[in-house]
Parts: sequence; structure tokens; C-alpha cells
Amino acid sequence: MIKIYHNPEKDSWKSLIQRPKIKTDLLKSLVQEVFGNVKKNGDVALKQYTEQFDKVKIDDFLVSKEEIENAYNCINIELRSAIVDAGNNIKEFHCHFKEKRKVIQTKPGVRCWTEARPIEKVGIYVPGGTAPLFSTVLMLAIPAYLAGCQEIILCTPPNSEGKIHPAILFAAFNSGVTKIFKVGGIQAIAAMALGTESIPCVHKIFGPGNQYVTAAKEYALTIGTAIDMPAGPSEVLIIADNYANPDFIAADLLAQAEHGVDSQVVLLSNNSTILQKTLFALKEQLENLPRKSIAQKALENSFFIEFSDWDTCFDFSNEYAPEHLILAVKKPKKYVSKIKNAGSVFLGKYSCESAGDYASGTNHTLPTAGFAKVYSGVSVESFMKKITFQKISKKGLFNLGHTIETMAEFEELYGHKNAVSIRLKN
Amino acid sequence: MIKIYHNPEKDSWKSLIQRPKIKTDLLKSLVQEVFGNVKKNGDVALKQYTEQFDKVKIDDFLVSKEEIENAYNCINIELRSAIVDAGNNIKEFHCHFKEKRKVIQTKPGVRCWTEARPIEKVGIYVPGGTAPLFSTVLMLAIPAYLAGCQEIILCTPPNSEGKIHPAILFAAFNSGVTKIFKVGGIQAIAAMALGTESIPCVHKIFGPGNQYVTAAKEYALTIGTAIDMPAGPSEVLIIADNYANPDFIAADLLAQAEHGVDSQVVLLSNNSTILQKTLFALKEQLENLPRKSIAQKALENSFFIEFSDWDTCFDFSNEYAPEHLILAVKKPKKYVSKIKNAGSVFLGKYSCESAGDYASGTNHTLPTAGFAKVYSGVSVESFMKKITFQKISKKGLFNLGHTIETMAEFEELYGHKNAVSIRLKN
Repeated sequence: MIKIYHNPEKDSWKSLIQRPKIKTDLLKSLVQEVFGNVKKNGDVALKQYTEQFDKVKIDDFLVSKEEIENAYNCINIELRSAIVDAGNNIKEFHCHFKEKRKVIQTKPGVRCWTEARPIEKVGIYVPGGTAPLFSTVLMLAIPAYLAGCQEIILCTPPNSEGKIHPAILFAAFNSGVTKIFKVGGIQAIAAMALGTESIPCVHKIFGPGNQYVTAAKEYALTIGTAIDMPAGPSEVLIIADNYANPDFIAADLLAQAEHGVDSQVVLLSNNSTILQKTLFALKEQLENLPRKSIAQKALENSFFIEFSDWDTCFDFSNEYAPEHLILAVKKPKKYVSKIKNAGSVFLGKYSCESAGDYASGTNHTLPTAGFAKVYSGVSVESFMKKITFQKISKKGLFNLGHTIETMAEFEELYGHKNAVSIRLKN
Repeated sequence: MIKIYHNPEKDSWKSLIQRPKIKTDLLKSLVQEVFGNVKKNGDVALKQYTEQFDKVKIDDFLVSKEEIENAYNCINIELRSAIVDAGNNIKEFHCHFKEKRKVIQTKPGVRCWTEARPIEKVGIYVPGGTAPLFSTVLMLAIPAYLAGCQEIILCTPPNSEGKIHPAILFAAFNSGVTKIFKVGGIQAIAAMALGTESIPCVHKIFGPGNQYVTAAKEYALTIGTAIDMPAGPSEVLIIADNYANPDFIAADLLAQAEHGVDSQVVLLSNNSTILQKTLFALKEQLENLPRKSIAQKALENSFFIEFSDWDTCFDFSNEYAPEHLILAVKKPKKYVSKIKNAGSVFLGKYSCESAGDYASGTNHTLPTAGFAKVYSGVSVESFMKKITFQKISKKGLFNLGHTIETMAEFEELYGHKNAVSIRLKN
């Protein structure tokens, strides 16, 4: 079922860390066609695609006030409390990351600082499917709201009755989304990137999706709309020592594997008994999993490695740069400084990935496919940009002037030099 | 020479804020060809392109220790001190932006925090040309060094003698660059994105360049290498009141206009006398500018606007989202909160853009072409990513568990639910 390697040579790591890739190349001409049509025909094009792909006629894409009010009453009460509880934790964690202004005097009379400002208009995409992904709504709308974005729009495909699941509507309304639209797929991304009569164009688009949505976001980026981060299948890497509970590890691996057939789960240990026991628990738990067939396929893309050297587990993990990293070890804090590349890290026996996926407070929109080497997960900062400011006094320019003049002269930019000289002469 | 508008209607703003675009579409097949060749033939391909485009044979791309040592002795002494002085200011400003760890307890027993880590390998591109752009070296290498990047490589095209200007070498060595390579153009970006025998591949590429380099960076992004930000011609927008000095404003406009024929300069005021006086000063100063012909063409793309309403100046500026914004007004701090979109802001009479371009301490790598609505300029954070951590105790999971189980159940992810249930049962 799952491959097990023993102390693989460093040469083989490059191929081991390869992920199943989301192929979007073949979709490019379709994406360009949809974008072209949406640009030209606006809402008419959206209606046409919604009928074609979602098999439903939509007259008004905007979800009405009444629909939102109804959602509040329709939604399961237990789920409503759970969404509120998780939302509060997410708010509590995310709200702490707004920087305070700190003025730095780099030379007497030269004062510089940075101020963050919200991105004015942002768009959130929430995929459709059998179950409503309300957790994605919380993870994207809450930081957008905390950042202070003026316009936070959400697009999600309608069901065959032209409706959106009440849990999505409730989560969106409760998290500060300003407008919800019943539109999905490539056409939703095109609408947010270009704007139509009913859907405002936004500056940055967030959210997961299938390969069509991924291809559309990639295209949106090339025409000047920012996106949250490059996409790839979800993944977890677990490092376990002999203290770890194989049942817990197996459950965490399956929680990841059930996401999709291209998900990947990796287990590293210096203890072969743990690997064997986990494999056993995995097989057992898999039998009772409703999404067994999906998980099974994901496990075929996955592997366990036994490294005799403990440090090598961390070297491999850093090369892999997992989206989720679980340290199922006795003293996890001891190893925090060894972690160079990861999206989100879960320390110890009770920090299961599901907690971060839903409710502990951290964000679940994380870099996959090794992008954790470069990109951060979504945070309030993803919805803001920073502006630098400087206030230079007469004395300050006197202190800096000669340096600027000299540098400008050697870069042969005499206009730059003159902007200083003319002030110093004055 | 320069267009002057009076209270243009809001409908016309959209066309006014259009920037001259860098066209890279036609270069795409060339870029793909070069990337393909570099991927296949490595250094051999680089040598071939260097001979073809830079008209010089390079045996070893790596700049030697001796060349760096010689640079220290060759460089003009005044310039050397200026580079050190500017470098110190840039360090002083940039070093303050490393966040401290702050552990947030979102629920009793649920502790979450964020830690920043350097991007391990980064690449800096410095364009060639008649004058050496050592200021770009400082602006990119210093934050990379402060971030703690392990490998900071720099690529810049050699001159016809196969050499790099000593000011570039000195600035690079002094700022913490680990390796300098004599290679430019598309092939340099390809080398950093793919790696060759002599040039290591990097995770993120920074730096300005002509349309070939821009097209190459855009392509690198599509194959998984991060880049600093989308490129566009440089620009300044100045808001002036009747307190402003027209000679200073004219000098600042020309400092921007001399960058390139596609640069854009904009002046907004509620005072027509200031506009007229600035126009007069501009014509006068232009005559003595060595890069007159470039600046003159840039001014043809540029405009002044008289707005009778003062607040409208800020509304227009926010729509334009300038790379550089100068507030040539009596009480600039009064207006800071009105600024929603800008790359870097210069407050008052003595805060000229040249100061930020070279030596005040802020970064000069800034979002152009309206991208200041979404992107920040380069900072230490551009060379880092953030990892979230969580440590949940038994009690913590008990407090969170029901919420997670409920949400997972409604998202039909029973594996996610089980990862909690199995622990709670234990």
C-alpha cells in the first residue's frame, strides 16, 4: 500500500520530494476563452457558463439579505456554535499580527517608518462539491476583515437549485464578507479579476479550487491580479519518535489522505517499530473511513522513511518543506529551531492537524508542493501591504546630501543629484 | 511638453491612471528557448548567450576573490565612503523589522504562534548599462543578509572586457552577497531559476531589468521560482500646496523622468500658480540635464492636474497608487492617514525622492504600475517566510475537540474528525 524506505541516499531525495503536480497547461486556452468572454459580455457570459457547468439558471448572482437571514435559521444549531467558536479562535490568533508604527531615525533629522494599509478589494473563492467548505470561509474572510479590507467578496458555485449552503452563508456573514455571489469555476475567477456589471473586480484573489480554478488564478496573476499563493495538493509530514502513539499518527495520516487522491502523507522515524505499528493502525482505520477509496489512492503516492540518524529526519523534512508538519515526539519544542521550511507545525501528541484545519486559531491556507521554502501561509498581512514613509529635515538632508550626490553622480543620474543640490544651495 | 488637466471628471481617471506597459508577450518564445537551452546545456548555454549578447567570452562565471579584493582598491574613495554610509542607513532601517515571537493562547491549553525563517537561497539581478547600479545591490543584498539567507547570489552582465564594475563588487561584498556571477539577461534569470554547474538555483529572484529580464522573471514565476514583484516603469506623483517650492518639485520630477523614456511623473495641486511655476522651472532645469532627451520623452507621457478640491488630490493619488509619492505641502503629517496606496512616501520640503533612492534607509525596490494597491516594497520580510506553530495540551484538545468534530462532520471529512475522537477517547 505505502512504500517504506530505509536510509535513502541523499541523491534520491530530489525524486522523493517530488509532488504529484496539478496540470494546468492544457486548460490555458479554455481559461483564456472564458476570460475573453467575461471581459466582453460580463454577466451574460457568467450566466451562460453557470448554465453550462452548474446546470442552473441564475438571474441575480448576488445572494440577497433574506437568503442570508434564512441561513441563520436553517443552519444546524450545533454547527452554528462550532463556527462561532472556531471563528473566535481564528480572530484571537490573527488579530495580534498588526504591526505598530516604529519610527527609525537613521541619521539625525532622517526619520523613516512603515505603515500597513489594507488591500481595498479582495475576493475569496470557495469551491462547491458535496460538502460545504465553511472552514475556508472563516480562514480567508476573518483575516480580510481584521486587515480592514473595504470590499470582501465571496464567490462560490450554486447547487442545482441555485442555492448556497446555509453554513457558507452564515460563516461568510459572520466573518465580515460584504457580498456573496453565486458563481463558480473559471468564470468566477474571471469575474473577480475583470469585474462585471454585478461583480466588482478585486485586487487579490484567495482560495482553493480544482485544476480549473487553479489555472484561472494562474492566468489572473499574469494579467495583474494578485493571488494568495501557488496551488498544489495538500500534504502532511510527520516526524515520530518511540514516544509517539501509532494510532494517533495513523489517524493524522488518514485525515490528510482523505483530502484527495493526489494528497501525500509522509512519516519519518528513527524507530522501525513505530513505522510498523503505524502501518498496522493505518490499515485498520482505513477500513472504517467513509472516503476510503480516496485515501487509499493517496496512500499509494505516499511513503514512510526510517532514518537511523535523528537529525536526518529534520534535514529531509526541510528539503521536503511540508505544508503540515507534525512532531509526534516527546520533547517537540527542542526541535523547533531545526525547522527551516514548513507551512504550519503541530507540536506533540495532542496537536492534531485537524485542530489547525478548523479551530485552534492558525490559518489552514498554507503553501504546498514545497512552496513553504518561500511562501508563508495566509495571515492578516496577506490582506495588507506596507508603505514606507520618510520625513527629512533641513539638517537631515545636510547630513545625507553628500552621500546621495556622490552615489547619483557615479550612477550618472544627474537629475537625482540635482534634487539634492538645489535644496542644499537654497 | 506636459499635459495639464483641470478638474478631470471621475470617468476619465481610469484612462489617466493607465501606465505605459512593458510588453513581454512577444519575448515569451525567446525566453522559453533560452530556459530550455540552459536547462539542457547549463554553463555551455550561458557561455554561448554571453558571447552572443554581451560580446565577450567568459571562462569562469564566478567572480574571484582577487577581483573582489582589487575592487576595494580600484573604487573611488569618495564613492566607497558613500556606499558604506548609505549601507549603514539601510541596515539601520531594515534591521528593525524582525518580529518577535508572540505566543497567543486562543483557548486554555491551545497555544499558537508564528516564527519567521529566512528563504535559504535567493538571487539578485543587477542590470548592466553605462553606469554601475550599485544602489540596487545595497537595496537587495542588505535585507537578504539581515534576513539570514544562507546563499545570496548576484548575477550581473560583464562588460566587453569580461569585467564587473568595482562599485558593484564592493557594494556586493560589503552587503553580504555570497557569490557574484558574470552573467546577464534572460540567461542569468534562467540560471538562477534552474541552476547550472556553476550557478546554484535559488528559491526567489529579485531585481530590476529591461523587458527581456522582466519577461524571464515572469516565466520563472510560472515554473515555480518566486519573484520580488511584477515590474513596470518607474514613476512619481507629487501633491503640492502653495507652500511648495516649484524649483524643488521640478527637480524631483526630472529626477524621476531621467530614469527612462517610459517613466511617468504626475503633479497634483489645488493651486494653479504652483503648476505654472513648476512648469517654468521644469523647462529651465531640463536644459542642463545630461539625460535631457530621455527626460523629455518621459515628460510627454506625463501630466499635471489642478483639482479645485484638496481631498480629490488624495482620491486621485490613491487611484493612481504611485510608486513614489511626495507630499510637498506645509503640514504633510496631517495627510498621512489619507494615503491608502503608495510604494514609498516622502513628506515635506526636504524629503526628496533621491534620498530614498540611495541613502535615507528605506528600500527603493517598490511596486510600480498601480501594484502599490496590493504589493509592498522590498523589506527584510521579502527574504523570509513565516511558519505557524501550535502546541495543544490534553486539556486544550478537550476544550477544542467538540468544535472540530462538529465542523469536520459537516464538511464530511470523517478522517479529520477521527483524529480528534481517537485522542479524546484515549
